[in-house]
Amino acid sequence: MELYQLLKEVREKTPLVQCITNFVTVNDCANILLAAGASPTMAMDIREVEESVEKVQALVCNLGAIESVDAMILAGKRANELGIPVVLDPVAAGGTTLRREVMGRLLKEVYFTVIRGNASEVKAIALGRSGGSGVDVSKQDEISSENLNIGAELIEQFAKQTGSVIVVSGVIDLISDGERTVFLHNGCPTMARITGSGCMVTTLIGGFCGANPKKPLEAALAAMAVMGVAGELAEERRLENRTGNATFRTDLIDAVFNMTEEQLKEKINYEIYKG
Amino acid sequence: MELYQLLKEVREKTPLVQCITNFVTVNDCANILLAAGASPTMAMDIREVEESVEKVQALVCNLGAIESVDAMILAGKRANELGIPVVLDPVAAGGTTLRREVMGRLLKEVYFTVIRGNASEVKAIALGRSGGSGVDVSKQDEISSENLNIGAELIEQFAKQTGSVIVVSGVIDLISDGERTVFLHNGCPTMARITGSGCMVTTLIGGFCGANPKKPLEAALAAMAVMGVAGELAEERRLENRTGNATFRTDLIDAVFNMTEEQLKEKINYEIYKG
Amino acid sequence: MELYQLLKEVREKTPLVQCITNFVTVNDCANILLAAGASPTMAMDIREVEESVEKVQALVCNLGAIESVDAMILAGKRANELGIPVVLDPVAAGGTTLRREVMGRLLKEVYFTVIRGNASEVKAIALGRSGGSGVDVSKQDEISSENLNIGAELIEQFAKQTGSVIVVSGVIDLISDGERTVFLHNGCPTMARITGSGCMVTTLIGGFCGANPKKPLEAALAAMAVMGVAGELAEERRLENRTGNATFRTDLIDAVFNMTEEQLKEKINYEIYKG
Repeated sequence: MELYQLLKEVREKTPLVQCITNFVTVNDCANILLAAGASPTMAMDIREVEESVEKVQALVCNLGAIESVDAMILAGKRANELGIPVVLDPVAAGGTTLRREVMGRLLKEVYFTVIRGNASEVKAIALGRSGGSGVDVSKQDEISSENLNIGAELIEQFAKQTGSVIVVSGVIDLISDGERTVFLHNGCPTMARITGSGCMVTTLIGGFCGANPKKPLEAALAAMAVMGVAGELAEERRLENRTGNATFRTDLIDAVFNMTEEQLKEKINYEIYKG
Repeated sequence: MELYQLLKEVREKTPLVQCITNFVTVNDCANILLAAGASPTMAMDIREVEESVEKVQALVCNLGAIESVDAMILAGKRANELGIPVVLDPVAAGGTTLRREVMGRLLKEVYFTVIRGNASEVKAIALGRSGGSGVDVSKQDEISSENLNIGAELIEQFAKQTGSVIVVSGVIDLISDGERTVFLHNGCPTMARITGSGCMVTTLIGGFCGANPKKPLEAALAAMAVMGVAGELAEERRLENRTGNATFRTDLIDAVFNMTEEQLKEKINYEIYKG
Repeated sequence: MELYQLLKEVREKTPLVQCITNFVTVNDCANILLAAGASPTMAMDIREVEESVEKVQALVCNLGAIESVDAMILAGKRANELGIPVVLDPVAAGGTTLRREVMGRLLKEVYFTVIRGNASEVKAIALGRSGGSGVDVSKQDEISSENLNIGAELIEQFAKQTGSVIVVSGVIDLISDGERTVFLHNGCPTMARITGSGCMVTTLIGGFCGANPKKPLEAALAAMAVMGVAGELAEERRLENRTGNATFRTDLIDAVFNMTEEQLKEKINYEIYKG
């Protein structure tokens, strides 16, 4: 797969991406979309989302904005009618009774092109169980080289069941559309020391799907790769300049802004597990 | 016009500026006000806005917070009674039916000292038409050297009709109070690669009007000039250090913080079109 | 007191801290918690806060989110039942009638382990009076070497009355549990030139209390010291690099991320006034 081509498409097509997302990381999500070449709109008033989604190339729904789930459903259904890709970030999906109920409604009412979460979140919705103590992955859910195959089976199954591309991010990322499954090894631990790494990459997936609506697996993989490589580049700078997580956040967005074909090719590290 | 004097007034008077603004860029708006020497308060609960506006020197209403339009009207009316400047940012004004309705209400109920938007937004409210696909200007609405005179006619007319100072920002900025019209050539394209450039400059106009309530045209021009020059200084740093849009955002706010009389005088580039 | 030990505890225990906080500074609050080694969750939907608070090590309530006071009360009561520390930031407490009413309800319904505000805010709630024009301290309320003893008396009294640790931050910080009172001299004026210095340090107090629930006075002092020393380190960089308030914000969070025992020991400047 020529992943840099997919980033080029974002830069050339500058897709407009509507995000119904949480107030914690919304600014970073907008700026990373702009860094990649896409254009954000964060309008989420329930009275206008159906109308505004008609003008966009992708819709991103982030469960951090749990109070806006009705707006997500209205916008998501309209996007489905229009064939606009819809990406879901099931933030803390298994964490509370409310979130389990809301996830049930979302999955019933809207077809999601891509669903991206951490292992606890994706397990919670795939298996309909509770789990996770908040926004972070639980130790027992974390995917490592030891349980990689079990994780792959789970998300292939869930991808088949939903028709969605499923992305589990972690130390190793798993991406599957049910037929093809890819493992991605990019990224760095400091990404978990800023708020919004997950939200940002989900938003990027929205941008990449907006530019490449026919290739959701490739779009999701390219977005994950760009984010992971940007994280590695930001980490190199952090170690060199002895800065901290705040500068890392800035450098990460900058790295997406400036990402070259050479950087992506040199650093990308993925393997096709199946397909 | 001695524009640096107007920045000095902000630094000396430290006006308190109340913002009813959107969650995407609220943090940047607060920090750029602080950078300029003003003081922000982002309280926007409808139960207290009428009371809290009594203590401030300016009110900024940003249509990005469309769910808070009732609070804007209450606060705006009270500010009008008290003679406190009110500045409006009609974010995505023509984008949806809801926004057109809400803009109608706002313009009917509140007198705005200054209205600042991009060409699509200002056209939408001046001509009562729809347009723009989101927060960005449409290609056909963009103001260039070719359609500058037509743009100037339009905003002069709209300024006379509303009694407001009208500011259209773009590659060339237009500022008019109906009698006097100024073109401003500062700024750089990277400003459109961060979220909140527009929201931030509208908030700055609030700060400058708070310190100089009798001179809204000059205050708006000075705020626009400070922002544009800060953008150019940040762009110089970006090119020098090969950073991206995230560092640019930081450098832009820093440049406002550190702006000197020399920098402003050296870089400012405006022409009086009329008056 | 071995204050570095308390920071080490945060880094080792990585307490999960739930924040019901305002949209202006929520991202910075999350990132500074992560910088210190703690883990943030900003979930604040009233339908789930009672459930989600069961999984956390501390709860932070910030009156900037005044629309969510009912969620604060539900979460706070549940935290009280479970013995989880609850920290309050009474943002602009005396500023409006609404805020005085809301503060009355909060203090009646929830026991707060620590309350941190500026002198205007703490006076407003301790004396039940109005005051302060917004989020900043009034000139006449500011604590200096001249009125330090009067301030100390007031907060000791208020600490005894509420059973809370009371923290007044300003040029000199005062911290008291009614028996012991400490003055802290760290920090710098640039901290008032960014939005969220107050919110961030209150959130840090939540993190330190989460890791050290039995020592709220020490936890509050250590958090205030870490923040103040980080501010001084960021100020050194600002003066050296001639940057502004935006870079200062980034450097401040970075300084918390990288804070060493040596830095804290070298710079900390406090005196035990009583106890």
